[in-house]
Amino acid sequence: MTVQEALKTYRENIAAMHALGHAMGVLHYDGATVAPVESAEGRGKTLAYLSGRMYEIETGKELAEAAQFLKEHRDELSAQDAREIEVFLRQSEFTASIPQAEYVAYVELLNKADAVWHKAKAESDFPAFAPIVKEIFATNVRFAKYYKPDQNPYDTQLSLYERGLTMEKTDAFFNALKEHIVPLLKKVMAKPQVDDSFIWGKTYPIEAQRKFSDYLMDVITIDRNRCSIGETEHPFTTNFNKKDVRITTHYHEETPIYSMYSVIHEGGHALYELHSGDELEGTVLSGGVSMSIHESQSRFMENLIGRSRPFIELVFPKMQEFFPEQLAGVTAEQMYLAVNKAEPSLIRTEADELTYALHVLVRYEIEKGLFDGSIAAEDLPAVWNAKYKEYLGIDVPDDKHGVLQDSHWSGGNVGYFPSYALGSAYGAQMLAKMRETVDVEGAIRSGDLRPITAWLEAHIWKFGALYDPMDLLERAVGEPFDPKYFTDYLEEKFSAIYGL
Amino acid sequence: MTVQEALKTYRENIAAMHALGHAMGVLHYDGATVAPVESAEGRGKTLAYLSGRMYEIETGKELAEAAQFLKEHRDELSAQDAREIEVFLRQSEFTASIPQAEYVAYVELLNKADAVWHKAKAESDFPAFAPIVKEIFATNVRFAKYYKPDQNPYDTQLSLYERGLTMEKTDAFFNALKEHIVPLLKKVMAKPQVDDSFIWGKTYPIEAQRKFSDYLMDVITIDRNRCSIGETEHPFTTNFNKKDVRITTHYHEETPIYSMYSVIHEGGHALYELHSGDELEGTVLSGGVSMSIHESQSRFMENLIGRSRPFIELVFPKMQEFFPEQLAGVTAEQMYLAVNKAEPSLIRTEADELTYALHVLVRYEIEKGLFDGSIAAEDLPAVWNAKYKEYLGIDVPDDKHGVLQDSHWSGGNVGYFPSYALGSAYGAQMLAKMRETVDVEGAIRSGDLRPITAWLEAHIWKFGALYDPMDLLERAVGEPFDPKYFTDYLEEKFSAIYGL
Repeated sequence: MTVQEALKTYRENIAAMHALGHAMGVLHYDGATVAPVESAEGRGKTLAYLSGRMYEIETGKELAEAAQFLKEHRDELSAQDAREIEVFLRQSEFTASIPQAEYVAYVELLNKADAVWHKAKAESDFPAFAPIVKEIFATNVRFAKYYKPDQNPYDTQLSLYERGLTMEKTDAFFNALKEHIVPLLKKVMAKPQVDDSFIWGKTYPIEAQRKFSDYLMDVITIDRNRCSIGETEHPFTTNFNKKDVRITTHYHEETPIYSMYSVIHEGGHALYELHSGDELEGTVLSGGVSMSIHESQSRFMENLIGRSRPFIELVFPKMQEFFPEQLAGVTAEQMYLAVNKAEPSLIRTEADELTYALHVLVRYEIEKGLFDGSIAAEDLPAVWNAKYKEYLGIDVPDDKHGVLQDSHWSGGNVGYFPSYALGSAYGAQMLAKMRETVDVEGAIRSGDLRPITAWLEAHIWKFGALYDPMDLLERAVGEPFDPKYFTDYLEEKFSAIYGL
Repeated sequence: MTVQEALKTYRENIAAMHALGHAMGVLHYDGATVAPVESAEGRGKTLAYLSGRMYEIETGKELAEAAQFLKEHRDELSAQDAREIEVFLRQSEFTASIPQAEYVAYVELLNKADAVWHKAKAESDFPAFAPIVKEIFATNVRFAKYYKPDQNPYDTQLSLYERGLTMEKTDAFFNALKEHIVPLLKKVMAKPQVDDSFIWGKTYPIEAQRKFSDYLMDVITIDRNRCSIGETEHPFTTNFNKKDVRITTHYHEETPIYSMYSVIHEGGHALYELHSGDELEGTVLSGGVSMSIHESQSRFMENLIGRSRPFIELVFPKMQEFFPEQLAGVTAEQMYLAVNKAEPSLIRTEADELTYALHVLVRYEIEKGLFDGSIAAEDLPAVWNAKYKEYLGIDVPDDKHGVLQDSHWSGGNVGYFPSYALGSAYGAQMLAKMRETVDVEGAIRSGDLRPITAWLEAHIWKFGALYDPMDLLERAVGEPFDPKYFTDYLEEKFSAIYGL
């Protein structure tokens, strides 16, 4: 075997995996957006076949030998090829540690779980979901042990999302946040509350909200020829290649705010995928490097940009055009305050920036407990509700507004949640660095966000998975990760809003 | 190898083919409905991989040996299994006659063709489409010759859609239609024309039309848990299994009539797929047996039911609820006449029942000419326009309203068009037979169409591909196919409407 032959074999196999991944991705997207409800069973069978093929290729002798050969001849490879082989071997080592039958069974379980979760959430029926969530966690614990038998399985799980992340680091991170957020929130709650009553009690037609979404996508510079908007129970982003990215949102007739921030959030994910370097396309290095970096981009757009005063001043006149009667007499400043109202609430995706990390903390602690066995799946509602009382001081009225609210666990995204809080903190550090060379507020005020997106593209997006997440962040900001940028940002912003 | 072993091998391979077909079908559907415009290239690569796998399985040694063994031991099989092997071997013989590289290249060509056709149609730019349509026909001629080297390739092509169909039979069929339709149309045109002006010049919001579609689907008894409605340039139906069928429509703000009949037409296709026998599910016998039988069901619903007086009397009050201002002062009888207005027109899918077959005839003659070389792809607009002048007496203003109107050729559906006219005629013969035991008008008037759908399920739908199309028709109606039922129906209906 020559290096050229090995590269050819490697690339052909990666192309086949990419095709299978694309097909599975479209099946999932279709299932979540437009497929008829009884389609789940047939989709499950097809996903089982495709994932079985995927497993066979990823762990097959042909690809393994080619990749191993290339690893041994890494000096003869370009830097990008050498990095790709390294990243591929990490992935395939994980996959190969799982027996094929279990791998396929898990894909089928998740397909079934999606339908069960939708129904359970609609009916606020946790017992219907309990056996599924139990099996999903048990499977993840088992897989983590297959992969790293000598390591704590939740450390393994965290590291699958963010290479190098451990419980120790995550605990320290959340402690740093708690130290600032809990007293800050206490001070905020002692002040007169922001009035956001004007956005409630009216109907915002979905047709107008759809047009508003199109407008927002334009503002944040998304190329719609390469990115569409679907409608789902829980908003998400998926991508098949850099010319085919999909975001979804959920329209609520009672307010345009929820969908507005879903679109901007998912739009941030989409921008990252849409602007991966052309030279990475079709390799395992294309697209976002980790979910924390991904969330840093989505929450950057949603909060650091989308909940800033100049952004609201920019989009509010247009908002009034879409909803003239509903927003008659409202000012941009009122809207700015309303979208930044900080108060403990039930739903993570609708939470303000200040309390958001506390929602994530609840989920992180629960995942830890499910992994180490100190929490049983059956007890999830009780544990959930107790933690919401403890951290947010509120009572959860039912499981629909509690433990059943998120799609992550039914989707197998176990270990994902810390990414949201980490991403929020990464983003604040990026913003501080960006300000050194970019007039961020000026760009927003002008309506042309390209100076902002150009910085993100040059420092984050274009690199795909060329660097590990922590390396990428350090290269972008010129220093190690430090959560103080985030806590400083929160202190400053909410002190101003609440006159602390 | 035992029969049991051979059956197991056969079934595993068919399941794999089914999974690949499902994935490719969803990719196509997604591409036509919601995918961003630049997604075509990536989808093409994925379809090429999946179709290559499909080819390898369908023509592979393992499946071929199992099927051949089962054919030789057909006496030991159930009647259904024996039939399935026969049908599978017919299909695989055709596929195996095509070299794999050409098979995959054709899938890629069609994926590209779809995007080219959409753009060419939007811009009425035939020259942009000419090289593609030329290559598609050349490929079909080549494939037909690979399959049956000693047979006229267009006869081969027709027979791929409707087993046993030849040009001789199709010519005779169209001659029989022309003999009745041309003089009947002349008499109609000499009479005062029906007034349908009241349906034009207004705006019918798409949101209301969507709700009207949902209502129509209910009326024709479609189980929406197993069938969704998408929106595409050209309406179509696709199905992945009997719990997952999709129809599409195209809403025009200027009238609800086009989408109304698209929904009922595609709904007819969907009903056929949704009611294939449970015992056939997952086999190659599940679903419609041929496109002519399929069109007999879609055009049955669209015309024999949907354009009948009792149907309009049933749905018109509801239509007025959806469009109260637009249809104020209109009566059901006026609407009945309007949807049956017979006059030569440009667009096949919008044509009345009387002139419809002439639209199909134009396409049939052009396909014959493209196959035998007497028509060159470059000359298509001129030939098309001349035939519309000859058969329908009208001038085609541009290619968008002429040769570019249909999606069939860009979709590779070459040889399909005669199915529409044959299906219309089959349907009329089925209706005559149905009337012997079912009070068709009474059922429609009552709003409960189940006596009608039950007859179709019992005589057509449930059989899937258990019988060849002509056998199925004969079993259903108790005599050989005879187009006179269709021409009698047209004479009677249009004589009454136009007072001939």
